Amino acid sequence: MKIALINENSQAAKNGIIEAALKKVVAPMGHEVVNYGMYAADDAAQLTYVQCGILAAILLNSGAADYVITGCGTGEGAMLALNSFPGVICGHVEDPVDAYTFAHVNDGNAVAMPFAKGFGWGGELNLEYCFEKLFGFGHGQGYPKERVVPEMRNKAILDDVRAALAEVTLEEAKAKAAAALNGDYSNSADC
Amino acid sequence: MKIALINENSQAAKNGIIEAALKKVVAPMGHEVVNYGMYAADDAAQLTYVQCGILAAILLNSGAADYVITGCGTGEGAMLALNSFPGVICGHVEDPVDAYTFAHVNDGNAVAMPFAKGFGWGGELNLEYCFEKLFGFGHGQGYPKERVVPEMRNKAILDDVRAALAEVTLEEAKAKAAAALNGDYSNSADC
Amino acid sequence: MKIALINENSQAAKNGIIEAALKKVVAPMGHEVVNYGMYAADDAAQLTYVQCGILAAILLNSGAADYVITGCGTGEGAMLALNSFPGVICGHVEDPVDAYTFAHVNDGNAVAMPFAKGFGWGGELNLEYCFEKLFGFGHGQGYPKERVVPEMRNKAILDDVRAALAEVTLEEAKAKAAAALNGDYSNSADC
Amino acid sequence: MKIALINENSQAAKNGIIEAALKKVVAPMGHEVVNYGMYAADDAAQLTYVQCGILAAILLNSGAADYVITGCGTGEGAMLALNSFPGVICGHVEDPVDAYTFAHVNDGNAVAMPFAKGFGWGGELNLEYCFEKLFGFGHGQGYPKERVVPEMRNKAILDDVRAALAEVTLEEAKAKAAAALNGDYSNSADC
Repeated sequence: MKIALINENSQAAKNGIIEAALKKVVAPMGHEVVNYGMYAADDAAQLTYVQCGILAAILLNSGAADYVITGCGTGEGAMLALNSFPGVICGHVEDPVDAYTFAHVNDGNAVAMPFAKGFGWGGELNLEYCFEKLFGFGHGQGYPKERVVPEMRNKAILDDVRAALAEVTLEEAKAKAAAALNGDYSNSADC
Repeated sequence: MKIALINENSQAAKNGIIEAALKKVVAPMGHEVVNYGMYAADDAAQLTYVQCGILAAILLNSGAADYVITGCGTGEGAMLALNSFPGVICGHVEDPVDAYTFAHVNDGNAVAMPFAKGFGWGGELNLEYCFEKLFGFGHGQGYPKERVVPEMRNKAILDDVRAALAEVTLEEAKAKAAAALNGDYSNSADC
Repeated sequence: MKIALINENSQAAKNGIIEAALKKVVAPMGHEVVNYGMYAADDAAQLTYVQCGILAAILLNSGAADYVITGCGTGEGAMLALNSFPGVICGHVEDPVDAYTFAHVNDGNAVAMPFAKGFGWGGELNLEYCFEKLFGFGHGQGYPKERVVPEMRNKAILDDVRAALAEVTLEEAKAKAAAALNGDYSNSADC
Repeated sequence: MKIALINENSQAAKNGIIEAALKKVVAPMGHEVVNYGMYAADDAAQLTYVQCGILAAILLNSGAADYVITGCGTGEGAMLALNSFPGVICGHVEDPVDAYTFAHVNDGNAVAMPFAKGFGWGGELNLEYCFEKLFGFGHGQGYPKERVVPEMRNKAILDDVRAALAEVTLEEAKAKAAAALNGDYSNSADC
């Protein structure tokens, strides 16, 4: 699986820590990590969480990525942005139990995590533990396991509803988002 | 402010606990709580989290509610469903710091909470504490406070992008969602 | 390593879940789990958290156990009880990062966990994840690793101070504790 | 009530943040905060968490303080140190529900908190919220409330057992601890 890492500007300085934790956990599982940045706080190309949403949607809908790891200060802004686009189901994951249950109940293709809120000693460990439980035990098997049938049915309904709502194609979405974004927001510390 | 409470079927049995915690906190602030159910696990009208999303979107877009409190087992399903509809910005709130930061960084109009995950002794206290911090200290003032300008700018961009993407009107969305939902999903224990 | 599991009465009904999570994680590491009960809420022999402390101290000081896993509703009562006795260094562990850091910073021989507070969906998963990080990565290596020297020095000082304070021998402690306990506390739901 | 704040060296730089959060919450309740330091990372007088334990025991047993707020990187070292001394019942508090339940189930006179683990964005808010629930709603009333009788009975037994075990008087304890500490540990970054 190709896993894309995307960081917005407010927490760009943690990109290296996040990439290291992610690779440590998923490389032995045979997954490939592609780090799309931002790579550091002073990168020339600054991304807001809204732009993370656009990038994630392009990567997932084009097949360039199978899964997206992203986040922001609290994870909420990135989660909202990603879920605004068709073809993206983005969870908000704060701890390893969130990670496991999102994989098995919601079976999405992206997670947004808090890279500042609650991120002190052990922050990098919590990332590792979340990635272990997100990627290491399959997905879509239900939690608790006996609920797998209604949970997967609801997931399918959600997919259908989101597809029905997505009048716009991905190309149109990109164009509209680009239009909505037609300013210089590159220095918006966010999330 | 009119605050709507909506529960899906898997955690419907907790509707009374949630309503009590919510009213205890927000009634003294002058807010009105309207409990849209489900009221109990065996209600005749069963709601899945997708249907919670439709109901929340109708309530918020029509002005029948100013804010929606919802959730499911982990909060993720309800959060995904609500964020699929135009006019809804739904956070995923697990603890009081999530509540405060969502109010001030993201300034949304709905939150989805975990009513089963991590909900043991103290579950009702954690709800109270979250509601205190979500509703008791204003909103949109930034966190940390010095980031308020870029945070509110990003929030406005997100609103614009979501509006641009929402080709469909609310009526169309309801029709499409209803079409996508044209089955009997009433007994889907979910989230 | 011999790992003893001890449950007090208020959460005795969860003994089976805890034992299963513990064995699942530590058996493949080559550790032996001995379940000292309580085994069920209606056991004839009821233990309060204070009695868990006495039992843990006897097991650890006699060498019958190398490590003790215990807890109560919140974990605080059991933690306090165990730390009242010589030869016991008991952490309070609520999540996997607590588990890892306690092993590496404090290098104790017991942990007390919350078996009711925050114990809802995922409670059994959180136990597993804590045990993985408590037992799977060694101990006493410092966290962050560069602090290992002062951390282990402080741990040694704490051991010395506790030993100096423990005028009483273990036998005396047991006698005194028994005297202090000379009533029928067997039905005290606690913690 | 006189509330003493004590910081060890590894997190001494946060003393001002902690004092501000504590005063903000408890001053309106009529409590007095006495800040015993450390006040900054480079204070001439460096305290390890073991020394925090000695200081806390002296303050509480002499009546100079009614309650002690302390901690370290994870809170575990400070908690262990304080609970090594007679006359101290120190909880380990990571979130507001921990704070409320410790006040009502265990009714102690000190808490140790994590000032580095999980301390990122919102760290100062979490402190405030914990202090609100620790001090704002009484103590010893049980949680859940219907368990108050066995819980307070167990608390009394624990007090008795700890007193019975404390052969040493406070003066002896201080002498022994001082002897055990007869080295220069002043630069031990700890916890």
